[in-house]
Formats: sequence, C-alpha cells, structure tokens
Amino acid sequence: MSDNFVKEITNMEDDFAQWFTDVVIKAELVDYTEVKGFIAYRPYGFAIWERIKEYEDTEFKKRGVQNIALPMLMPEHYLTTEKDHVEGFAPEVAWVTKGGEKELEEKLYIRPTSEPLFCRMYSKWLKSWRELPFLYNQWCNVLRWEKETRPILRSREFYWQEGHTIHATEQEAIELTLEMLDVYADTIENLLAIPVLKGKKTESEKFAGAVDTYTVETLMLDGRAIQAGTSHYLGQNFTKPFGVKFQNKEGKEEFAYHTSWGTSTRLLGALIMAHGDNRGLKIPPKVAPIQVVIVPVATNKEGVIEKATEIYNELKGYKDIRAELDLREQYSPGYKFNYWEMKGIPVRIEIGPRDIENGECVVVRRDTLEKMTVKLDELNETVVKLLDDIQQNMYNMCKEVRVKRTNVAHNMEEFEKEINENQGYIKAMWCGDPECEEKIHEITGAKSRCIPYEQEHIDDKCVVCGKQAKDMVVWGRQY
Amino acid sequence: MSDNFVKEITNMEDDFAQWFTDVVIKAELVDYTEVKGFIAYRPYGFAIWERIKEYEDTEFKKRGVQNIALPMLMPEHYLTTEKDHVEGFAPEVAWVTKGGEKELEEKLYIRPTSEPLFCRMYSKWLKSWRELPFLYNQWCNVLRWEKETRPILRSREFYWQEGHTIHATEQEAIELTLEMLDVYADTIENLLAIPVLKGKKTESEKFAGAVDTYTVETLMLDGRAIQAGTSHYLGQNFTKPFGVKFQNKEGKEEFAYHTSWGTSTRLLGALIMAHGDNRGLKIPPKVAPIQVVIVPVATNKEGVIEKATEIYNELKGYKDIRAELDLREQYSPGYKFNYWEMKGIPVRIEIGPRDIENGECVVVRRDTLEKMTVKLDELNETVVKLLDDIQQNMYNMCKEVRVKRTNVAHNMEEFEKEINENQGYIKAMWCGDPECEEKIHEITGAKSRCIPYEQEHIDDKCVVCGKQAKDMVVWGRQY
Repeated sequence: MSDNFVKEITNMEDDFAQWFTDVVIKAELVDYTEVKGFIAYRPYGFAIWERIKEYEDTEFKKRGVQNIALPMLMPEHYLTTEKDHVEGFAPEVAWVTKGGEKELEEKLYIRPTSEPLFCRMYSKWLKSWRELPFLYNQWCNVLRWEKETRPILRSREFYWQEGHTIHATEQEAIELTLEMLDVYADTIENLLAIPVLKGKKTESEKFAGAVDTYTVETLMLDGRAIQAGTSHYLGQNFTKPFGVKFQNKEGKEEFAYHTSWGTSTRLLGALIMAHGDNRGLKIPPKVAPIQVVIVPVATNKEGVIEKATEIYNELKGYKDIRAELDLREQYSPGYKFNYWEMKGIPVRIEIGPRDIENGECVVVRRDTLEKMTVKLDELNETVVKLLDDIQQNMYNMCKEVRVKRTNVAHNMEEFEKEINENQGYIKAMWCGDPECEEKIHEITGAKSRCIPYEQEHIDDKCVVCGKQAKDMVVWGRQY
Repeated sequence: MSDNFVKEITNMEDDFAQWFTDVVIKAELVDYTEVKGFIAYRPYGFAIWERIKEYEDTEFKKRGVQNIALPMLMPEHYLTTEKDHVEGFAPEVAWVTKGGEKELEEKLYIRPTSEPLFCRMYSKWLKSWRELPFLYNQWCNVLRWEKETRPILRSREFYWQEGHTIHATEQEAIELTLEMLDVYADTIENLLAIPVLKGKKTESEKFAGAVDTYTVETLMLDGRAIQAGTSHYLGQNFTKPFGVKFQNKEGKEEFAYHTSWGTSTRLLGALIMAHGDNRGLKIPPKVAPIQVVIVPVATNKEGVIEKATEIYNELKGYKDIRAELDLREQYSPGYKFNYWEMKGIPVRIEIGPRDIENGECVVVRRDTLEKMTVKLDELNETVVKLLDDIQQNMYNMCKEVRVKRTNVAHNMEEFEKEINENQGYIKAMWCGDPECEEKIHEITGAKSRCIPYEQEHIDDKCVVCGKQAKDMVVWGRQY
C-alpha cells in the first residue's frame, strides 16, 4: 500500500457506491471470499459488530428477552406452509439435498429467517396462558441467495438477531412490536449516531407474512435510504398454520399472537455510509473498537517511545477509554496518520520530542479533522470530553444531512425534480393505492420508506392520482 | 408434569445414557426438532452456553486473539485439497446443490470445521513476517452429518469456537497450541468444576490433517470419557496446499506454521454428565445462570411474599449473585423444590411464616442436599460463602470419581477386568504400534484417551504385545 490511502479511495462525490466498497476493503472491515456473494469479516469489522450486538443484547435482556438457538436447516414443507412467506422467500433460499453420502428424502433449506421453526417449537412448548409471553431471540447467520450482492449491505450470508415473541393478546403483542422498534431506534441514534425515521411500512413493503411491519429508516450521505431495522406484528398468520395454541384464562383454546423483529450486519453498512469522508471511515466513539490512537513522532529520539507508552498506559486505564499505541517500525508517522484516519479512529494523539519538552501533545479529532494542542496533565480528561463531543457532533452532522436532503412534493413534477436534484427523502401525500406507489417507483426509482409516526398535512390530494390522500409517506431511493 | 420429577427421570444406575436424555429434556436445556439429529437450545441451556462462551472469549482476548467471521459454505475443492482432511470429513458433510432457483456449478458444503477457508483467507492477507502472528477465532455453528446422534453430545449441528493461528516459526506455533490447551483446562476445571487429564493424542486419534493433537479429557459419572477440547499443531499441512506464505526476516518465502483449537457445546454435555444425580442436574455456581432460588412457603399468610421479595432484592444486588424468586401461583412449594433441584440451581432458600417470626430461613445446597437454618441478617454473606464452597466441593466430588475409577493394567487380563468392573480410565503401557491400540479397542471397547503430560512408569512392556513400551497411555470408553 502506498502512503496515501486517500488516493486509493474513490471520491464519494464521484461514485459513492465505489467509495463504500473501497473503504470497507481498505480499512479491513471485510474481504471478498472465493464464493460469490459471501464475505469474510476481518477483526476490525467484526469488533464493531460485536459492540452493536452487545449493546442490543443488553437492551433485550433488560426487557426479559432470552436467547435460544434453533437449527439452521428446515424441511421444505416449513417454507410452503404460510402462503405469503413462501412467495417472499422461496426464490432466494439455498437447498441442502445431500447429507453425508445420502440424498435426503425431503430437501432442507438454510434459514433465510426462522418464523416457521420458532412457531413449530412454540407449538410444542406452549400449553397455558400462564406461561406467556415467550420472549425469545437468537443471534445467528442467515442466508438469502441474492442475485445482486454487495459487501455487508447485501451479502448472501449475513449475521443478525431475530426476536420472536408470542403473547396471549393482540394488544400485548402489538405493544411489544413497538417497544422493540424503540430499542432499535435507541441503538441507532445513541450508539451509531444516526437519526432514524420511525414509521409503518405500506402493504407492498411489509414483511412476507406480517400483519404490520414497523421500520426505522436511515439516510446515507449520498441521500439513499437504508432500512436499518424492522419489527413485525404477525398476528396469527404463522401461529395458526403452525399450530401455536394455548388454553386462555377462560379455559378455551386460542392461537397465540406473534411478533418478530430483526437487525443485522446491515447496521454496520449504515454506520459506514452515514458517516465518513474521502479519507475513509468515521466511527462514532461509543461503537469504536479503538477510540484513541497514539502515534509517536521521531521515535529515534530519546524518550519518545517511553513517553508515548506512558500516555497510552494512563489513557487505557482511564474511564474505559479504548486506546491503541502504534509502535510499528516499518511505517512513517505520515503513513500512520493516514492509516488511522482511514480506519475512522475518533481521536489521534501525536507526540514528538518538542511536544514532550513543552509538556504537551497534539490531538486530532476525526470528525472535523481539527487539531489542538493539549497539556499532558489535562490529556485524559480532555479525551473523555472530546469523545462525548465527537459522538454528539457526528449525530448532529448526520441530522443536518437529513434536514438538507428532506424535501416536500405536492405533485409528480416536484417529486421528480427534488429526487433528481437532492436525492434524499421526499415527503408526499398518498391515497393508499399500491398502484400509485408502484407508479412512483417506476418514474423515480424511489420506494415508500414508511408512513411516519409523525404525520404532517402537506396536501389534501395524493401526489400521484390527485384523489383524496390518506397519509403522508416518506419516499426515497434505497440500498 | 407431576409433582415428582424424580420419577420421570431414569435412574443413573439403571441407564446412564437415558438419565442424560431425560434430564436435558425435562430440565428444558434443549429439545428435539422435526429434523433428525438437530436440536433446539432452550433459554436455560443456551444461558449456560453463553456463560461458557463469555469466559473463554475473555481468556482468548487477554491473549490477543481477535474474533472474525467466515462463511458457512465452502466450495467442494476446498475439502479435497488436503488428503487426510478429505478422508476425515467427506463422509459427514452436508451439500448445498441449489441456490435460489439454480443448480450450482460447483457444489458447496456446510463447514464441519474451517481450516481450508481460514488458510485461503490467510493466503490473501499475509505478506510479511512483520504482520505475524495472526491470532483469529470464530464462534459459529458447524455441521457434521453423524449417523448416530444424541442431544448436545452428538448433534448434527453444533456450536463451537474454532481458533486458527499462523506463525513465523514452528516453535511459536507449538507454544500457542499448548497455551490454548491450558485455557481449555482452566475453563473446564475452574468454571465447570471438572478435573481434566491433559495429554497428546496418539496418531490414530489425532485430528484429520494435524501434526499433533493435544487434548483435555474428562471423566463422566458413569466412567465414560468425553474429549472436552482439543488443540492442534498443524505445521504446514494446510498452509502449503492452500498457499499461506510470507517473506521471512531473511527476505525468503516461507509457509506459515498453523494451529487450530476448538471447544464446543459438548462442554455442556460434559458439565451435565460429570455432575448431577437422580434428582437431575447440578450446575456449578460459577456457570449457573441462576445461583439461588427463593421459594416462599404458605404464600397465603400475611407478609410471606413481601419478605421473600425483600430477600430476593437484597440478594440479587449483593456481589453479583444471580438470584430468582419463584412466585408462581399454580405450583405448590413441594413442586417448586423438585423443579429447581432438577434444574440444578446451587442454592435454594425456603421462607415461611415461622421462619419470618424467628428471623431466619432454610437454605438447601444442591450438591449435598444438606439443609441449614440461617439468620436473615447473615444470609447474603452465607450465600456468597456457600456458592464458593459448592463450586469447590463439586470439583472435589468429581475428582473423587476419577480417582476411584482410574486403574492400572499390566496385561490384557487386568485391562478387561478393570474396565468391565470399574469402567473409567485405565493406565497402561503402550509400544506405540497402532495395531496394539486397535486390539484394545476391539477387545474392550476402550480407545486411547491420550498420552498424558504426566507420565508414570507402570511397566517395561506394552500391555498388548509385550514388546518394549514407549509411553504410558490412558484408555477409556468414550461418548
């Protein structure tokens, strides 16, 4: 690799998709493998995912959710039992037809999601209302045989959590559905520093088999959207065909009310595309595996390595700061600055002989690239404050992008103009007819992101057909 | 379920294997699914596995190991590249032949273990000796199409970690191999309270593709052994065919030295079979998801539920004690005592009106079933001490079983007599010839567990052929 990683990364403005691919490969988050559509998570990429997992898992457990683990393979007839589900998933599952040396009697498919299996197990475990709710989740790999793939964002195999709960009443199930959406919103806003748009999916965009799908939508730097997490109220759509029934308080048999909700390694994709610049990644401090990197300058001079090591030891013991010291001999300081900037480390500390003489060091923040001189005896406290400040500032910068890229359309002319000029979200009224939705997609490439919780009255009429509008919908092109 | 779980569990002495199956199902650790050989981990079983994972993962990370994630599918030619590897694994892999609606050009197999894939990625990532070692691990599911299956111990899909490291020198790789075996020994002895036997596998018993396999062996209550963890020095057996080379300090190209090491959900199986009794499980306090359960008695009497809740709140906040309060209305105290005993909760607290009057409660330890009366104001501290004591006592009890069931044989007559009378480990001398090893297996059903680190000189002659002996080997029947 050359000293200048910037040259090796395509400019965002020239080709954002290529910028993304360049960054995830060069920053060593992931790599291609020899099987098309499958990627390898390298330590840096996986460490970020582990932090997301840990954060969400803690939040789930606070709410009484327990982890379980179900098989990755299901028999073919599970897939075909629920009619919308099979339509949605059959085209993209991988089939196991041979186990050991024997052809299987019934083909098995690798889970693309596990509603049928959860329901089969629930039907076995559930007897009485007294045992409800079941609040179970699993962290696992799933597989969807996508035709077009893209590292992290759309890999054939990906990692996720799928929560599946069953309840004695519809109301309780719906409440849980919404509560889990709030957990996702919290994770994305507070950990990943990305503002979310909360809402309900339209009929055409909901999960295959759901009554209602709720979503948290995020907007990337280029104005395209990523659906970052979804929570589904499934009613009895799966519990009926899969026989998940119980004795209710009145002693009568009833089918349970079901939810499912998931977030995946796409969150990592959103994290990258919502922040970052032409130098590479910007990782928000809370989720960064390394928050501060110390790069000594002129290490041949007496005392530099010692001082850098001293600073490192003091920092990493201070209020859980995650610090790293770069003592690699084969690289110049300039190389290292670029290297760690590309990796998106929130704070860099540079320390050389003159700094040591003056009892200070240079601190550079990744979000703004601002440089400051800091007294060594104030360093620890400065870094702690700086990390908080960067986390907040990254959120604000991201919100600013969203504000700039959110526009209103009263008719299709405005819609086309806005989406072509500004990309981003378009707020527009909709009559509720899937045909109008489809027309928008055909003309502009945008899909409905959601019917936001927070409604505004923009117009009386549907942006497409001009008939009486029902809801304000946010539209956008997506990854 | 009846009030008496004991009746529903087969006696250990009558049929130990059936006891195991009864216990893991009744105590709700796992359950069967509708796909043969695949099981579901329920919350209680998975919570124990999560604690084992967390313990090991922390130890790995202390040693600089980083987690990554590689695909679950590999192309057929990966399997066939290393000759011992294909022989060992080809009969038991599952094949994906169709993705989406298309037949695949090259079949893909679900990983039974990932040496080939780690090596392919390493060959891509490794350039110079300066980057070495790579110390990577992944926590994942693997699949082996076993003909005979058994819940937890031999399921077709299981969960494990597979560490794969590469090094610039043979010596460093061997040291790492042994260090990871020590991590396993520590986990099993200190967390799971099972003494281990450390040693090297014989040629016939080593991993398919290894130079040397090291093992930690454990002995179950019925005298059968479980191989609880293995660490392999793989030399250049995989790095050569998969092209994992680097420039060494002298600027010459060299193939890297490779290790791999794994522990799996079998640890959970060992945990169950090494402890327990006819009432059910005994979970060592350090790994128990619930360490103390509080069962109020005569809850209709005033103040009982309140006092039980008070005790619960004080306990669960004290020195990380993991406590549970059983307020279920539909069950009697007797039912609850049996239920929690079956689940193996280390400490039970019973509290009723008379106890409250006397300012005390009844404390029952699961390991010995001993009952004691404890003053309420001494309860927290008593429980902390008791948990330590139970952990130690369970280890001691387990060690006692091993001492009792370890015997010496100087000839095959003694060997047969000892293994038939006492099951367990047999120490006997061996000439090193695989034919003698095979003969022991044919005659007694026992296999070599390992050549222990700690050698004893029992005899000059091989227990089978009478020729000059090389090593003392420990033998045993196994799960």
